[in-house]
Amino acid sequence: MTDISMIEAARARLDGHIRRTPLLSSPFLDEIAGRRIFVKPECLQHTGSFKFRGAWSAISALAPDVRSKGVIAFSSGNHAQGVALAAKLHGIASVIIMPSDAPALKIANTRAYGAEVVLYDRVKESRDEIGARLATDRNLTLIKPFDEPQVIAGQGTTGLEIAEQAAELGIDKADVLVPVSGGGLLSGIALALEAKAPGLVAHPCEPEGFDDMARSLVSGKIERNASLSGSLCDAILSPQPGDITFPIIKRLSGAGLVVTEDETLRAMALAFSRLKIVVEPGGAVALAAALFHGSSLEETVIAICSGGNVDGDIFRMAIERFPD
Amino acid sequence: MTDISMIEAARARLDGHIRRTPLLSSPFLDEIAGRRIFVKPECLQHTGSFKFRGAWSAISALAPDVRSKGVIAFSSGNHAQGVALAAKLHGIASVIIMPSDAPALKIANTRAYGAEVVLYDRVKESRDEIGARLATDRNLTLIKPFDEPQVIAGQGTTGLEIAEQAAELGIDKADVLVPVSGGGLLSGIALALEAKAPGLVAHPCEPEGFDDMARSLVSGKIERNASLSGSLCDAILSPQPGDITFPIIKRLSGAGLVVTEDETLRAMALAFSRLKIVVEPGGAVALAAALFHGSSLEETVIAICSGGNVDGDIFRMAIERFPD
Repeated sequence: MTDISMIEAARARLDGHIRRTPLLSSPFLDEIAGRRIFVKPECLQHTGSFKFRGAWSAISALAPDVRSKGVIAFSSGNHAQGVALAAKLHGIASVIIMPSDAPALKIANTRAYGAEVVLYDRVKESRDEIGARLATDRNLTLIKPFDEPQVIAGQGTTGLEIAEQAAELGIDKADVLVPVSGGGLLSGIALALEAKAPGLVAHPCEPEGFDDMARSLVSGKIERNASLSGSLCDAILSPQPGDITFPIIKRLSGAGLVVTEDETLRAMALAFSRLKIVVEPGGAVALAAALFHGSSLEETVIAICSGGNVDGDIFRMAIERFPD
Repeated sequence: MTDISMIEAARARLDGHIRRTPLLSSPFLDEIAGRRIFVKPECLQHTGSFKFRGAWSAISALAPDVRSKGVIAFSSGNHAQGVALAAKLHGIASVIIMPSDAPALKIANTRAYGAEVVLYDRVKESRDEIGARLATDRNLTLIKPFDEPQVIAGQGTTGLEIAEQAAELGIDKADVLVPVSGGGLLSGIALALEAKAPGLVAHPCEPEGFDDMARSLVSGKIERNASLSGSLCDAILSPQPGDITFPIIKRLSGAGLVVTEDETLRAMALAFSRLKIVVEPGGAVALAAALFHGSSLEETVIAICSGGNVDGDIFRMAIERFPD
C-alpha cells in the first residue's frame, strides 16, 4: 500500500524527468475568491497533465526484465499520453487500447508519443478481452490509471512539491483543492500532505452530476455515478472511487466540493486571462471551487489545475462566454 | 552601465518576489522545428510579462527617500502593469500616463494593480509635458521602459535563470531567441549569458515590417522603423533600438530573425495546444522564429515567450486559424 516512503522513492525516480510546476497567483483571482488563491498548474507537466507522474512512477518501479517486455493501458485520454511518453523515454514498447470512435487528435497524439494504438469497437468488442489477450501473448504489464500503489505514489509527488512550496511561502494552513475522478491524484497528495504539511487539507472537486467522491465521503462507502457521459469534464469521469484510493481519501480528505459547468468554463477563462495557462474542463473544477465555493475554506487555498488537453473549440467557447 | 554584477545584485533584490519560470518543451515542437526547442514562458511571470522584473529592479534600486515619493511611467501595455504592481508591493504610489483611447481593459487592469492612471488626449495634449509636470510637482521618479540600466539589469535576471537551467540540462551551446522592441530584455539576457553561459548566443526576433533591430545589427548603427502601427505585435513596437541597449546588443547579439504575422499566430496556436500556455502576438515572435526559421540555428534553441496579455478575440482567431 502506498505510504510516504513510496512517494519519496517515486520522487527520486522521477527526479530530472518531470517538471516541478510552479505556484501561480493573481490579485484578480484573490479578489474574486475573497481569499488567497495559489494554482499548481499540472497542465504544464509533460503530456499536458499530472498523469505523466504516475505513469513514470509505475513504469520505473517495474523490475527491468518485466519492464523490457513493454506495458499496456486502457485509456482515451491523459493516462494514455502519460503512459505512452513515459514508456518511450524508458525505451520500451507501449500498447494503448482506445475505442475506435475516440477523437482522431487524441489517437494521433498517443501514437506520436510512441505508443502502438489498438482500436476496438465499443459496441461489438470487449476491451478487457482484447487487453488480456495482448498482455498474455506479449507479456505486457498493465498500467492501471489510478487503483495502483505506484501510480498513486507518482501522483503523490505533486503533494511533496506543494508541501515544499507552501513552506517557502510561509503557509502552514491551507485547503488544497484537487480535481478527482478515480482518486489517484487526491489520495497521493493527501498522503504526502499528512507526512509533510499536516496543516494542509486536501479536498476532492467534481462536476455537478458526477460527484461520486463527495457523496462517498458523506456516506462513508463507495457510491457510484448515475451517468458517465454528458459532462464537458470528460477527463475526470469515472464510475466510482477506487478500491485502493477510497480508504486513503476517507481517512485523510476534507469534504468534497461540487461545481457547475458554467463555473468550470469561467474558471478556464480566468486561468486564460489572469494566469496565462490553458486548462481543460476537468482540470479546472478545483479552481472553480476555489473561486466560487470558497466561503467555508481557509484563508489560503491551493488549487490544482490538473490538465490542459482541451480542444480548441471548447476553449474558444469558454473565453468567448466569459470574457472578463 | 549595466554589467553582470548589477544583474546579480538585481537578482538578489528580486529573489522571493518574482517567479523563476520553468523551461517547457514538447516533442511535437521539436519535430516541426527539426531541432530541440525549449521555451522560457515569461507570460507566467507576475502581471503576465517579463516587464515586472525590470520594474521591480528599478524601483527596488531607488534610494528609500526617493522611492517613497512614488514613480511615474508612460505605457499602455506590459510596462505599465509591471510598474504598477511593483510599486504597489513596495508600498509606494505609481502614476501611469496612458492615452485616453487605450483599451478599457488595460486601463482597468493597470488601476487594479494599484496605479493612478492619468489619461491624455493623443491629438491635443503632450504626454511628455503632462509627465514632466506631474513628476516635478510630486517628486515622482520616471521608470523608463528599457533605456535604463537598472531595468536592463532586472530583465537580465531572465538570462541568469536560462544559464542555470541550460547547465542543469547539460546544454553548453544554444541559440537564445528573444522578442525585441527597445532591447531591454535582449541586452540584459546577452550580458548575463556572456558572463554565465558563453556558449549561448542571444538573437533578436521581430515581426516583418518592424525589424529595426535586425537592420541596425546589419548596418551597425541605429535604424528606425518606417511605421509604428499595423502589427498585431503591438507590445513590441518601438521606433528604434535604445541608445543604451543597442551598443550592448551590437557587441553581444547574434543576427536578427524576422517572422510573418501568420507564423506568429501559428506559434501562439502551437503554444496553446502543445505547451498549454497563453502567449500574446509580440511575445510569440521568438517561438515563431525557432519553429519556422531555425535552419541556420544551433541544434538546441531556447525561445523566450515574453508575455501573455492578449485579448480573447485575437487569441480565439489564432487557435481557430491554426487548429493543429
